[in-house]
Amino acid sequence: MELHGGNIYKVKREFGKEVLDYSSNINPLGVPKKFKEILIENLDMLERYPDVEYRDLKEAIAKYNGCEIENIIVGNGATEVLFLYMKKIEAEKILIVGPTFAEYERAAKSAGKIVEYFPYEKDFSLDFEKLKKASSNFQVVVICNPNNPTGKFQYKEKILDFALFLEKSGKNLFIDEAFIEFLENWKEKSVRNLNLKNIFILRALTKYFALPGVRLGYGISFNKELLNEMERVREPWSVNAVAELAGRVILEDIDYIKATDSWIKEEKVWLYNELKKIDKIVPEKTETNFILIKLLTMSSKEFRERMLKENILVRDASNFRFLDTTYIRVAVKDREKNLKLLKAIEKVVK
Amino acid sequence: MELHGGNIYKVKREFGKEVLDYSSNINPLGVPKKFKEILIENLDMLERYPDVEYRDLKEAIAKYNGCEIENIIVGNGATEVLFLYMKKIEAEKILIVGPTFAEYERAAKSAGKIVEYFPYEKDFSLDFEKLKKASSNFQVVVICNPNNPTGKFQYKEKILDFALFLEKSGKNLFIDEAFIEFLENWKEKSVRNLNLKNIFILRALTKYFALPGVRLGYGISFNKELLNEMERVREPWSVNAVAELAGRVILEDIDYIKATDSWIKEEKVWLYNELKKIDKIVPEKTETNFILIKLLTMSSKEFRERMLKENILVRDASNFRFLDTTYIRVAVKDREKNLKLLKAIEKVVK
Repeated sequence: MELHGGNIYKVKREFGKEVLDYSSNINPLGVPKKFKEILIENLDMLERYPDVEYRDLKEAIAKYNGCEIENIIVGNGATEVLFLYMKKIEAEKILIVGPTFAEYERAAKSAGKIVEYFPYEKDFSLDFEKLKKASSNFQVVVICNPNNPTGKFQYKEKILDFALFLEKSGKNLFIDEAFIEFLENWKEKSVRNLNLKNIFILRALTKYFALPGVRLGYGISFNKELLNEMERVREPWSVNAVAELAGRVILEDIDYIKATDSWIKEEKVWLYNELKKIDKIVPEKTETNFILIKLLTMSSKEFRERMLKENILVRDASNFRFLDTTYIRVAVKDREKNLKLLKAIEKVVK
Repeated sequence: MELHGGNIYKVKREFGKEVLDYSSNINPLGVPKKFKEILIENLDMLERYPDVEYRDLKEAIAKYNGCEIENIIVGNGATEVLFLYMKKIEAEKILIVGPTFAEYERAAKSAGKIVEYFPYEKDFSLDFEKLKKASSNFQVVVICNPNNPTGKFQYKEKILDFALFLEKSGKNLFIDEAFIEFLENWKEKSVRNLNLKNIFILRALTKYFALPGVRLGYGISFNKELLNEMERVREPWSVNAVAELAGRVILEDIDYIKATDSWIKEEKVWLYNELKKIDKIVPEKTETNFILIKLLTMSSKEFRERMLKENILVRDASNFRFLDTTYIRVAVKDREKNLKLLKAIEKVVK
């Protein structure tokens, strides 16, 4: 599982002490308080199977996204939904726009698909005209939006135009919006309501609601045949009862959402500006809650190791395809922790 | 998902009120108290990913079973482990001994295997000599032990003899021990330590520890190549953090285990004897925490519907292959609830 960044347990085992985890991109406000309270009151639900149809959960998700219950599929983390999609989408060849999250490739290959990559430009922008040409031989194009690890966002109009282009030749677009809720007015920016049969949207509660331990992801699609096929092969009860409860509670937690929105709006700009002031590193401007950083004087491996000595774990981004050993990625956390991060980086690059 | 019995949610939606669920076979002592306390103290762990290697969890399971960490694979419920096994075991044809749990067939077929069934005898005993002959064309034989829904148990010596027979021709044996902990001295009766490469053992925390909502299952195997192959294709973090914590806590909860053992030892015999006294039904003697009942004067559908009017949900067992519309299954619960069950059955069959 070396593809992933956030193996804090392995680091702890090797390093022997607790470290500040800047390698995984979780909302620093932590587990929503209201959810904790409701969970504690309802622990006896664990002695029952979850609803195998996940009716109430799907209703809550549909309401949150302004769509219908039959457009929703839920999964054990976004991972399960991704794997089911790759298993059931009719396609031989998948084109992934990168650098990006490694799991798309793993899911596609485990479903026997052929995978190729299309690169972002040098400044990590996306040239849709080039992508249109490059996509001619593929049945599915995968875009992570906003993109992990670059933090760049493609606007809805461009995605719509591209989806309509793909539709003409019966091709599909898979959009991972796992980080979209960190954008201001995300509901206007999401492609959730485009109502196109060839778009599939992946979401998770992992990042924005700080619940990666709970494992809840979902997909939105207007292709009912595809969703039925995915449901047909999924394992029963794959979403646990805690995740089911979380989905029914947190999406309506206005206080948590407001607090998160006000934190991220300020902190992502502040941290980026502070990072820019540090010599020998170049941060990428971000639209979301993590920042890709280019190191000018040190390898990502060395940087990571020296940061660990300062008790901070960063993501060595060199194993993202198209990136090299000059890239690392950090999360945006709260001000107190971000100050620690900045201090440690300054010390390490000096 | 009509293959399964326990869809209490659908019943609630259609029936409009709470019912006593005798259709799913869960320990009536409920969620272990110590686990609840530790979970409440540790809710912030939900904001971290689980350990993708599940090191501590596997250690706890290995210790509980007297084997090594490398013999253990964990999954999102027993279901995930079952599906991974069927995906990765080298086999074209699978022979399932039935009537039994329907999910083996579903998992095997979803992995492209051909499935056939071998029947228990009329009294639900298993004729191993016949089974040996019948298995010649198959690469895997599946036995649920103790068997759901019949409650019968095959002793270790017979399983060992059969496994050695299969080994000679390179065949495999899949043993589902999801209910084995309800047997007295189960550690002596399990095949967990036979150390044969061709046996795979499936387990769950669902039934004995009353945690179906948590989703934690595991497999035990001495075939490291197979376990590696299964690990290679599994989805990362498929076991959630609550399940991970549960596995590390409950297997050492001696008080809960003692209380459960003393309840089941007495109650399964008592309930069976009481059911025997009722005219027009014939209960099957059970080794575990559920009882198959033959109805002499009524169809399973009618019986189930009439029991629902008494606020009790039983499992219509007619959709188990080899059973017919004269069979239902009930769980063994605590004395108070079992008395309600008996009263309702008496009323319904009169």
